[in-house]
Amino acid sequence: MKALVLHGKGDVRAESVPDPTPQDAHSALVKVERAAICGSDLHLYHGDVPAAPGLVVGHEFVGEVMEVGSEVTNIRTGDHVMVSGVIGCGQCKRCLNGEVVRCERKQTRVFGMAPELPGGQAEAVAVPGAEHAIRRIPEGVSVEQAVLLTDILPTGYFGARNADIEPGETVVVIGAGPVGLLALLSAQLFGPARVLVVDRIPERLALAAELGGIPVSAEHADSVIAEMTNEQGADRIIEAVGSDATILKAIEWVRAAGTVSVVGVNTSPAVPFPMIHALMKDLTFRVGLVPVPELWSALIPLVACGRLQPERVFTHRMGLSEGAEAYRRFNAREDGILKVLLDPSR
Amino acid sequence: MKALVLHGKGDVRAESVPDPTPQDAHSALVKVERAAICGSDLHLYHGDVPAAPGLVVGHEFVGEVMEVGSEVTNIRTGDHVMVSGVIGCGQCKRCLNGEVVRCERKQTRVFGMAPELPGGQAEAVAVPGAEHAIRRIPEGVSVEQAVLLTDILPTGYFGARNADIEPGETVVVIGAGPVGLLALLSAQLFGPARVLVVDRIPERLALAAELGGIPVSAEHADSVIAEMTNEQGADRIIEAVGSDATILKAIEWVRAAGTVSVVGVNTSPAVPFPMIHALMKDLTFRVGLVPVPELWSALIPLVACGRLQPERVFTHRMGLSEGAEAYRRFNAREDGILKVLLDPSR
Amino acid sequence: MKALVLHGKGDVRAESVPDPTPQDAHSALVKVERAAICGSDLHLYHGDVPAAPGLVVGHEFVGEVMEVGSEVTNIRTGDHVMVSGVIGCGQCKRCLNGEVVRCERKQTRVFGMAPELPGGQAEAVAVPGAEHAIRRIPEGVSVEQAVLLTDILPTGYFGARNADIEPGETVVVIGAGPVGLLALLSAQLFGPARVLVVDRIPERLALAAELGGIPVSAEHADSVIAEMTNEQGADRIIEAVGSDATILKAIEWVRAAGTVSVVGVNTSPAVPFPMIHALMKDLTFRVGLVPVPELWSALIPLVACGRLQPERVFTHRMGLSEGAEAYRRFNAREDGILKVLLDPSR
Amino acid sequence: MKALVLHGKGDVRAESVPDPTPQDAHSALVKVERAAICGSDLHLYHGDVPAAPGLVVGHEFVGEVMEVGSEVTNIRTGDHVMVSGVIGCGQCKRCLNGEVVRCERKQTRVFGMAPELPGGQAEAVAVPGAEHAIRRIPEGVSVEQAVLLTDILPTGYFGARNADIEPGETVVVIGAGPVGLLALLSAQLFGPARVLVVDRIPERLALAAELGGIPVSAEHADSVIAEMTNEQGADRIIEAVGSDATILKAIEWVRAAGTVSVVGVNTSPAVPFPMIHALMKDLTFRVGLVPVPELWSALIPLVACGRLQPERVFTHRMGLSEGAEAYRRFNAREDGILKVLLDPSR
Repeated sequence: MKALVLHGKGDVRAESVPDPTPQDAHSALVKVERAAICGSDLHLYHGDVPAAPGLVVGHEFVGEVMEVGSEVTNIRTGDHVMVSGVIGCGQCKRCLNGEVVRCERKQTRVFGMAPELPGGQAEAVAVPGAEHAIRRIPEGVSVEQAVLLTDILPTGYFGARNADIEPGETVVVIGAGPVGLLALLSAQLFGPARVLVVDRIPERLALAAELGGIPVSAEHADSVIAEMTNEQGADRIIEAVGSDATILKAIEWVRAAGTVSVVGVNTSPAVPFPMIHALMKDLTFRVGLVPVPELWSALIPLVACGRLQPERVFTHRMGLSEGAEAYRRFNAREDGILKVLLDPSR
Repeated sequence: MKALVLHGKGDVRAESVPDPTPQDAHSALVKVERAAICGSDLHLYHGDVPAAPGLVVGHEFVGEVMEVGSEVTNIRTGDHVMVSGVIGCGQCKRCLNGEVVRCERKQTRVFGMAPELPGGQAEAVAVPGAEHAIRRIPEGVSVEQAVLLTDILPTGYFGARNADIEPGETVVVIGAGPVGLLALLSAQLFGPARVLVVDRIPERLALAAELGGIPVSAEHADSVIAEMTNEQGADRIIEAVGSDATILKAIEWVRAAGTVSVVGVNTSPAVPFPMIHALMKDLTFRVGLVPVPELWSALIPLVACGRLQPERVFTHRMGLSEGAEAYRRFNAREDGILKVLLDPSR
Repeated sequence: MKALVLHGKGDVRAESVPDPTPQDAHSALVKVERAAICGSDLHLYHGDVPAAPGLVVGHEFVGEVMEVGSEVTNIRTGDHVMVSGVIGCGQCKRCLNGEVVRCERKQTRVFGMAPELPGGQAEAVAVPGAEHAIRRIPEGVSVEQAVLLTDILPTGYFGARNADIEPGETVVVIGAGPVGLLALLSAQLFGPARVLVVDRIPERLALAAELGGIPVSAEHADSVIAEMTNEQGADRIIEAVGSDATILKAIEWVRAAGTVSVVGVNTSPAVPFPMIHALMKDLTFRVGLVPVPELWSALIPLVACGRLQPERVFTHRMGLSEGAEAYRRFNAREDGILKVLLDPSR
Repeated sequence: MKALVLHGKGDVRAESVPDPTPQDAHSALVKVERAAICGSDLHLYHGDVPAAPGLVVGHEFVGEVMEVGSEVTNIRTGDHVMVSGVIGCGQCKRCLNGEVVRCERKQTRVFGMAPELPGGQAEAVAVPGAEHAIRRIPEGVSVEQAVLLTDILPTGYFGARNADIEPGETVVVIGAGPVGLLALLSAQLFGPARVLVVDRIPERLALAAELGGIPVSAEHADSVIAEMTNEQGADRIIEAVGSDATILKAIEWVRAAGTVSVVGVNTSPAVPFPMIHALMKDLTFRVGLVPVPELWSALIPLVACGRLQPERVFTHRMGLSEGAEAYRRFNAREDGILKVLLDPSR
């Protein structure tokens, strides 16, 4: 089949690879209908995360079930399904509850990050532990929405949920990339009076405004936040960039007894944490990986009922065969690109 | 001054009464700019709640500060303010926290319900404990919105907050009167996937739909709720009618481990509570009086930022001198009437 | 085998019945080592709950695994285990989370309440859905403690958890029977300053005092609670009797914005609920069936580490062959009886 | 009067200073009966926190009211009272709620840390904002317990409350100094199955065991915690040392989706925070200053009812005139010293 294969730093190619084969009676074979490129795929593309050459990448994908193991009872051949981008052992108490990122047997794995679990930017994928990792796409949820439900929408929602938002509060989202914008949409579910969105790129700020946020240019953010909060700081901050600098700004901008929720990926072993300021503030600080299937029970009905319309983040739709170009543009942030949808049939 | 005076069952008249006089250094005198008639005023009008003839009625009003006691530091003469419809001692721990309905000294009182605290359907009102009962109307909040903030919007919000709503859930509001509609708006702050609104009156259901609810005719409610929840029952119910029958329906319609929040006023000493069904369901059941000032810290920014637009419930605007007719129509539910705003200058 | 069989009102006999047979690959056969008689068994004994003659009764039992179905992976032959007194379908989301009393497929069943699921006051029991219903008795938990973990200790804990107790609060437990005493022990886990226990029977009050409660004779309870709470009412009430009268007292004794948690079984379809008082109080009222396996994750370590010592409620230890006499005495509350442990080998 | 005065690094002397004078009608004059030395006083003693020479130190003290301003209604001359070690403006919403460390007007101050607010290791203290800072010592609370209620017991409790402990969980307290031991006592209010206490000093570990903790020698803590938690990590960690190393250990030892609560004072602007490990763990991390008066409503009844017995941490009782020696020994951790009580009459 055709798939996007990582050959080294900055080198992703669409090429032929062997067809995937389900491993056991708990697995399923899914023919991919749409996949997406995620910001975390760029960690592989940049070589920040080491990967053996030849890896089939991608962890956001939906498709049609072609084969299903004898022990899998929740889906059938022919079903259109979404697949959690991250999976666990599927049997411990946490996995049964959908908290696969906290698998007690420490078998948390992401599609397309290691050779044992080839990714979904491909024509087909073998999915282990299908009973827990796969969900039928329900009525009211489009294919594009379903792709977002596999990872990035739960991530944005996780950031908002971790922020302890209460009705009437003022929230700041740092970063208007796709995760930040989905955090903005998710934050609105918790009844804030205002959600400020801070970024440097005017088009991203314009989109934030369109989605209900109050755009704040990064260069003026210090004074705007101070003024809008009467020098008290914002009630809650969702950090969706992941740099040391924005994490420190989050701690600076939050009010006393407020919450900083980090969903931007920062892989540093030693961010210089201002303990003395956190101490004076009475800070709650949260950071973690998204437990995708656990969050589906809240997110699927919200999307199906039209309360969440995340698909607005897709700015580019390309064929899987254009994968190398898609990665190049996404990485370069060319052309107002936010999120790319890939079609394996093209 | 001119005021609406209750003379007996069904007999409210606009007439002249002595001007009010502030009692002490903690009081203020407010010239009323707008007042509203509340469903609970009808309890007096019906004679359900006993009242001495000659009572000046009304507990929803806003106005301009004319005099202010020497100990009151949060407002000044000339300020446009809203006044909590319910007040307490103003000094115990709960009153300091805005929970005036739970005053530890048991001094909870409502304007216009007893001769000691004449009401606000009048040209002026003397407000005791002004430091806690009065708040300046902030920028972004209109006079009509401010009237709703004195009692009925907090009531609808209190019903929604007490319902334990979590994102993605299905909520049922029973009753599309003004409290029910404001409960609908408030419920949406907690991120439900769907809010069903049950009523018998088509125009009220139409308004519920306009405000984002899913209208359900009372006669079909049993089957509609069963079907939409896959026979599991709704996650949360907000009862905004107050009859025995609707309270029992609320317990019937809620799912296992769900919540029933009652804001409809039911003054019965013995509602026949189906303990055996509640036991099988693992029910949380809540009912109470709204702690108005406590809720302002959430509600004022929501209204000021445009996230809550409660003024849609006003269907009729009349002069205070038309008070008798206003009560008659409101009581008769004539002419699509939902909520009446009174102007003391007319 | 030998078992206790219900033949009609007040008629339980120890007699021979056919040996049980596991139904399928998800079942297990357990040889009973100890069983207990529960207050809810008396509902059958009194004929309040209808039962076909010939029912093998009892839902509190522990024992040794004799056979285990091929699909059951969490236990093995020879294991000493406890069995949840209540089970569900074992496959829906709620059953997977241990909330078997809220089974989405409505398959909640209690051992020894219907012919399809014979009870545990017997030499052996066939347990369906063993993967979810059975847990190995861990180190540090005695056989007697394990019997209490199958139903009544979780019930007492459920009552306490539902009461929203916060550190420093004053709690009232109504009823010093076995459920009330275990609710007392459980309430202490939430850090109250004081737990008052109300009963009429001096020996039960003495035991409550021994277990850390403040004994209050029922006849003086009104004035004692008023005085100890400065006329404000108790923060939280746990009702462990189940009569209409004690439920009404619970609502009377609780403070404004407090919680009443009912664990006493009241099977009335129409308890006269004082809605007007509840309204004035801002009441949270909870009642439900205990989700036994869900609570094991908290309770098992507490017992194993010695933080909960529930076995003190066993006042009588008898042979299974003395079952008729055991029921008679338990029903008559003779001889200071609180809770009877039955040994099938005698 | 006599007072302890800081003259420079390592130089505290008992000497004569002018008598204090209450500033205004909201102040009170308190004759000190007992004071204590706090670990945070050592920051001044070490010169870590800059201080002008001549400062009267100490923020933990109780005494008798000698004079009281005309606006102070909650206490009278002759009352025996405790004083919050930290105060705010006393008028903003947060101060009214006892959250003086989060004063909206940024007037949070600690006694004995700056010349404007002389401390309590003295014969008398002038207390501004007495209505909020002072509480009468209630029946059932001893003088020594009251001293602990002014700062260090609330601090230990704050650490425990911030840790999100649920019944049955495993908690680790790092550090068995006075704050750690009071965090241990406080943690037990939340129903954990086990509280492990880690320290290097055998006598401190012995005391931790006496108070209900499981002592763990720091050198074996890695393996003990791993083994006792089945390699999952502890549910909750309370860090009561404040060094970079112990904060990093806290993050290492906590389980996935657990909580680290820091109450040890770390004044670093840049602790090297392992963001990548926190990300993998789904960490909640909290650090803050204790809101003393807010916590009194929970802690005073717990002490008065005998549920908390914090006085065990006092190991040394000395006269105020021995202050220099007291500081020297406390700083040197000589002689098993944990906490020193000072008597101004000696």
